[in-house]
Amino acid sequence: MSNYLITGTSKGLGLYLVKELLKRPARSVGLIFATTRSAPTPALQKAIDESSGHVVNIIVDPTDVESLKTALPLVEKHLGDAGLDVLINNVGTGPFANGIKNMDNLADVFNVNVMSVQNVTTAFLPLLEKGELKKVVNMSTTVSSFAYQDVFVRLPAPAYKITKAALNMLTLQWGMEYRDQGFTIFGVSPGWCKTDLGGEGANLEPEQGAEAAMKVIDAAGKEEVGRMINIRLEGFEDGPGDRYQGGVVPW
Amino acid sequence: MSNYLITGTSKGLGLYLVKELLKRPARSVGLIFATTRSAPTPALQKAIDESSGHVVNIIVDPTDVESLKTALPLVEKHLGDAGLDVLINNVGTGPFANGIKNMDNLADVFNVNVMSVQNVTTAFLPLLEKGELKKVVNMSTTVSSFAYQDVFVRLPAPAYKITKAALNMLTLQWGMEYRDQGFTIFGVSPGWCKTDLGGEGANLEPEQGAEAAMKVIDAAGKEEVGRMINIRLEGFEDGPGDRYQGGVVPW
Ligand SMILES: NC(=O)c1ccc[n+]([C@@H]2O[C@H](COP(=O)([O-])OP(=O)(O)OC[C@H]3O[C@@H](n4cnc5c(N)ncnc54)[C@H](OP(=O)(O)O)[C@@H]3O)[C@@H](O)[C@H]2O)c1
Ligand SMILES: NC(=O)c1ccc[n+]([C@@H]2O[C@H](COP(=O)([O-])OP(=O)(O)OC[C@H]3O[C@@H](n4cnc5c(N)ncnc54)[C@H](OP(=O)(O)O)[C@@H]3O)[C@@H](O)[C@H]2O)c1
Repeated sequence: MSNYLITGTSKGLGLYLVKELLKRPARSVGLIFATTRSAPTPALQKAIDESSGHVVNIIVDPTDVESLKTALPLVEKHLGDAGLDVLINNVGTGPFANGIKNMDNLADVFNVNVMSVQNVTTAFLPLLEKGELKKVVNMSTTVSSFAYQDVFVRLPAPAYKITKAALNMLTLQWGMEYRDQGFTIFGVSPGWCKTDLGGEGANLEPEQGAEAAMKVIDAAGKEEVGRMINIRLEGFEDGPGDRYQGGVVPW
Repeated sequence: MSNYLITGTSKGLGLYLVKELLKRPARSVGLIFATTRSAPTPALQKAIDESSGHVVNIIVDPTDVESLKTALPLVEKHLGDAGLDVLINNVGTGPFANGIKNMDNLADVFNVNVMSVQNVTTAFLPLLEKGELKKVVNMSTTVSSFAYQDVFVRLPAPAYKITKAALNMLTLQWGMEYRDQGFTIFGVSPGWCKTDLGGEGANLEPEQGAEAAMKVIDAAGKEEVGRMINIRLEGFEDGPGDRYQGGVVPW
């Protein structure tokens, strides 16, 4: 029985990752800590209400170290002697800019996409050390791959690309450092999903992305440490950036 | 005759890049704007005094957009009708951390290594548009290459690796966007040099790194846009990370 903590679950992929876990047999999933910055949205509240106590909402701002210090004992109290098995760093933001010289949000986006991951991982590390699986999953994107920049040249989200590239290097640093202590720390690209971030033009429903991402998370082991892993989905092979054939995304 | 602006010239590579330009025939180098955050160090002052007016010190904090707004008209006044030809974004910092969970300087290092480049490039873009060469050089490092992380696994500078990876993606975004407007925006890895940042154990004198970096800058054209270019130095071929054979550093 594994315990999960997922950040940014009020909507989008975070919400569907929670729902995906709830589809599993109750005996395989313990507690799911679903963090949000404010009170649960109706959609998350519904999942909580229908979860027979499996989903626990934690209100925390992942960009705020002090807020995380307050959250830690709340999570600990629920876990008792158990640890956390899987941490999914899911929060993220990808605002557009009209030309890179007008990108005036880089520091803010870095704070959300990178600092939050550093803060949350550090804050919950003691609970992960007590866990069995010791998995830390950082939600990344093929859009941040240097190798794919020609493909995504027209996506006007430079701060997203820059900060997720930084996140990938952060993931690799954590992955290498904690590999010998039994941790599997890696990135996942969940595909292009219809969420507020992904937009209406995306080719996947968030359920599909969340289900496929959870398969990657289940399967990940030593081989995946530090890397960004693509989802695998039959029938979606239409381009190098949104081709979902699994495997490692090239840097 | 080309005009240069180099940031962070009070010491280290920035200082030696200024000195390197002063070795050239006076007719090939116009003005060299040497920025520092505070009054020139004796070493920079000496270079200024011996430069027959070629080197102009500009006191500016590259992490501070308002400070840059004040600096722009000063530079403009010196240039008259001319533009800037080459901007070298040289400021950088690479503090150590004792384990990635203790990396408490990531936001600050990002501010210096990435935000300053965004700020400075944006601030001086109008002058670069008036210049002939339209080169923007961002000082990077092989240490930020995903492909070389195994080589540098023992260098305890995670914030440096993470933020320079972000810088590389920023360079690539600028490079791609401005390529068609005649700009050559790219990164240079100047080799491991004996500076406050590089430390005493480095295998190059800062003169060597600056001279080799300037050769890369001179030679760069369309092919180099967006990429990180390694220096070329005979006799230094001792490892994948500090092997100086020129060419593109893999991401
Ligand atoms: N959708 C896609 O196509 C796609 C593709 C590749 C990767 N991803 C990645 O998947 C993750 C989830 O994305 P999504 O599509 O589900 O996006 P979303 O629907 O916009 O949700 C993003 C979540 O991130 C949190 N968040 C947003 N802005 C924040 C801020 N300023 N400060 C703190 N937290 C903030 C929110 O958390 P709260 O619930 O706490 O408010 C929100 O629930 C992101 O890391 C994204 O980069 C998405
Ligand atoms: N040395 C190496 O082995 C090596 C290798 C690869 C890449 N590089 C890169 O080369 C560049 C120059 O490095 P270096 O070795 O010459 O380093 P350095 O001797 O430590 O000088 C760094 C310069 O950056 C500026 N700087 C440092 N901290 C700052 C801060 N907190 N805020 C604003 N500016 C700050 C300073 O500018 P002021 O003059 O304005 O005070 C200083 O002159 C860096 O981008 C570095 O990453 C160096």
